[in-house]
Amino acid sequence: MSWLVRTSLKGISQVILIENAVSGFIILAAITIASYSLGIITLLSSIVGTLIGKLGGAEEQSVNQGLYGYNSVLTGMALSLFLSSDDRWLIAIAGAAVAALFTAAMVHFMRQSGIPVLTFPFIVLTWFLLLTTYRLVTFKISPELTPQSLSNWTLNIKGETNWLDGAVNGIGQIFFLDNTLSGVLLFVAVFWAGWRLGVYAIIGNLAALLTSYGLGGEHSLIFMGLYGYNAILTILAVSIVFNGDSKHVLITGIIAACLTVPITASVVTWLLPYGLPALTMPFVLCTWIFLGARKVLPSI
Amino acid sequence: MSWLVRTSLKGISQVILIENAVSGFIILAAITIASYSLGIITLLSSIVGTLIGKLGGAEEQSVNQGLYGYNSVLTGMALSLFLSSDDRWLIAIAGAAVAALFTAAMVHFMRQSGIPVLTFPFIVLTWFLLLTTYRLVTFKISPELTPQSLSNWTLNIKGETNWLDGAVNGIGQIFFLDNTLSGVLLFVAVFWAGWRLGVYAIIGNLAALLTSYGLGGEHSLIFMGLYGYNAILTILAVSIVFNGDSKHVLITGIIAACLTVPITASVVTWLLPYGLPALTMPFVLCTWIFLGARKVLPSI
Amino acid sequence: MSWLVRTSLKGISQVILIENAVSGFIILAAITIASYSLGIITLLSSIVGTLIGKLGGAEEQSVNQGLYGYNSVLTGMALSLFLSSDDRWLIAIAGAAVAALFTAAMVHFMRQSGIPVLTFPFIVLTWFLLLTTYRLVTFKISPELTPQSLSNWTLNIKGETNWLDGAVNGIGQIFFLDNTLSGVLLFVAVFWAGWRLGVYAIIGNLAALLTSYGLGGEHSLIFMGLYGYNAILTILAVSIVFNGDSKHVLITGIIAACLTVPITASVVTWLLPYGLPALTMPFVLCTWIFLGARKVLPSI
Repeated sequence: MSWLVRTSLKGISQVILIENAVSGFIILAAITIASYSLGIITLLSSIVGTLIGKLGGAEEQSVNQGLYGYNSVLTGMALSLFLSSDDRWLIAIAGAAVAALFTAAMVHFMRQSGIPVLTFPFIVLTWFLLLTTYRLVTFKISPELTPQSLSNWTLNIKGETNWLDGAVNGIGQIFFLDNTLSGVLLFVAVFWAGWRLGVYAIIGNLAALLTSYGLGGEHSLIFMGLYGYNAILTILAVSIVFNGDSKHVLITGIIAACLTVPITASVVTWLLPYGLPALTMPFVLCTWIFLGARKVLPSI
Repeated sequence: MSWLVRTSLKGISQVILIENAVSGFIILAAITIASYSLGIITLLSSIVGTLIGKLGGAEEQSVNQGLYGYNSVLTGMALSLFLSSDDRWLIAIAGAAVAALFTAAMVHFMRQSGIPVLTFPFIVLTWFLLLTTYRLVTFKISPELTPQSLSNWTLNIKGETNWLDGAVNGIGQIFFLDNTLSGVLLFVAVFWAGWRLGVYAIIGNLAALLTSYGLGGEHSLIFMGLYGYNAILTILAVSIVFNGDSKHVLITGIIAACLTVPITASVVTWLLPYGLPALTMPFVLCTWIFLGARKVLPSI
Repeated sequence: MSWLVRTSLKGISQVILIENAVSGFIILAAITIASYSLGIITLLSSIVGTLIGKLGGAEEQSVNQGLYGYNSVLTGMALSLFLSSDDRWLIAIAGAAVAALFTAAMVHFMRQSGIPVLTFPFIVLTWFLLLTTYRLVTFKISPELTPQSLSNWTLNIKGETNWLDGAVNGIGQIFFLDNTLSGVLLFVAVFWAGWRLGVYAIIGNLAALLTSYGLGGEHSLIFMGLYGYNAILTILAVSIVFNGDSKHVLITGIIAACLTVPITASVVTWLLPYGLPALTMPFVLCTWIFLGARKVLPSI
């Protein structure tokens, strides 16, 4: 039992590439103060994913690191937030279970490459399940996700600039949160796992804020942290977690973090006709490029 | 000559993951009573695919199992049904030939993974060739395939509920058929190859009927079998053909069959702006997830 | 220094699958007479890509062959042509740098398959960067790239037939050029590297001209060479550069060249809702199919 709780908390911390049960607990607290029910979904999703890994007979070490939990956590959270039907809790938990299976499949498909699957299973599964709402009445999509034709799109970047909000909201958006206290708690969780992780998270967020502001992104999105969360995840992955003994981790990580900004802008545009959110796809694409390139260009 | 005919009939039976020339013959009969010309296209496509495998120098065993035939069969049938120009027969046969090459390429690309290519080459090739109709006047698309913007889409699930039709139409849709006698003959073909295959096909279809009805799918689609055919193929693949010595094949297969329902709803939605049919993509995606997951989670 | 210039010129020639510094120089001349500034971008992009390969520590032989240059060359050229903001030069060079990283990553991901990455990194990166224009004001897209809904699309193939233009424009389009002198110079560059390359390029272009005319493509596109450039690259790849000791290189290459025509029509249609150009995607898809198939069907 205590194994299950500890591993499930690690599963929550793995969302930000950290294996640390205490950090996982602080993150769970950050989510719960924002929404009580969302906290329950988060923990249940992680438990479901971890159990599937365990009972399915996955390699013990991966299960213990929480690697079967984090995609389930994100899928459960996203479905309960972006769906609007009354039984969305049930769909969220079922989705969390499928996410664990999909994670296992991707681990198999990517094994040869030596590159981690990251949050790819969560992203693709969530996109697929959100689109079922157009065909199955039980699934109801939140009205804020509306498909639009690209030909009618006009860009208006005007909006308040609030650098303080921007500093905290980026990390919150990883967990779909936008309240300040939760953001602060999330930073605590990261620093608890290691001060270098915390410093790099701040650097990554800052790089994304400046890049998106400099390239002329929409201010409302920038200061809600919607350009920042992918950059934070990317710099943590490229500079620390999968750094492969590179000597230039700081500069490579910053470049990778900056690159998430145009990639985010692009992913959002690809999805506009379907009304889907970008989720952490920019992080996955950008990190795969840098980790793959590093296998061939060991000095970066 | 007799080798060619026998192998081509096996190619037809491989569409439903069966290697059995007699079953192939019964399927060919089921197609031919629905449409004489479609039967000819089916046989010719299988011959073309098999010959390309043979003359191209593929591994003998794969060719003899009919594995170079089934993607050609489906491509030839789909093109002759979804195109409307007079020379669509020619295009269908040329498409069948390209399908065999594409199958060979996919066999190469997926070899490392140990996961079968299934009908992926047929699906992607058919989608590509159907979309050429917007640019090349020789290719004319059937008027029932019309692109629609997702933002104008409204879901109306009302319609007759006819469980008897639903019981037979699912298997027919694998071969683009919707008449009852053909459906019965197809079941005969499956049972001929093994009673377990037949029983699982019925279970898979039932699982999909109940799931799609329960989740609130469009009744007209459900009872035409459009939610069932992917489930039948998926349960056959997951529970029997590629079962990998798992001990829980029945329950895993049923879960996989149920999962094809939301995936079908989603694939149809992704394709709406292009007006393309889902074909067997839900089967391929769902089976890949379960077979890939089983390599990592051997107990499922 | 002389190493850098020579390798960068090879990088330019690798766009047409040739490793030859003199050919690269002639191509650079062909580009420069069409547009002085485009010539500078081309050379700079190749230098940037080559340097990243060198300093990143890539395998020496690949760098020396110019294999880190060609995707950068194409990305730099495409961005400076399809963007319209004043600082598009800067974006083009930054894009060229990212293209080299992406190339390295793709080299890693495709290593197991033994199939070359071709221009895939350039294509996908350019598509992504062009779509950022809808979200970041610094990136401004050229007004000729407008998204359109497929449901409003009508095909009108009427237009002048000019076979002489068609004979020269195909090769020019590889480098986004449509003036006749540049086309002639490009042929010189190909023949310089080997007369067989030149003859096959002419055959591939002719095959595409006849196929696209025969299938009823838009005359304006055909005779601007927009159906030809992918065919030229494909026949060079399939028949000569990666021929794998096949004995039927001519006939296989011609079939592959003809197949690029429907694939081009299809790729253009997929991209219509996003207003993106097909670039060399038809070449990549078609060549991957044939090279992959050849690993399994050694006689083709």
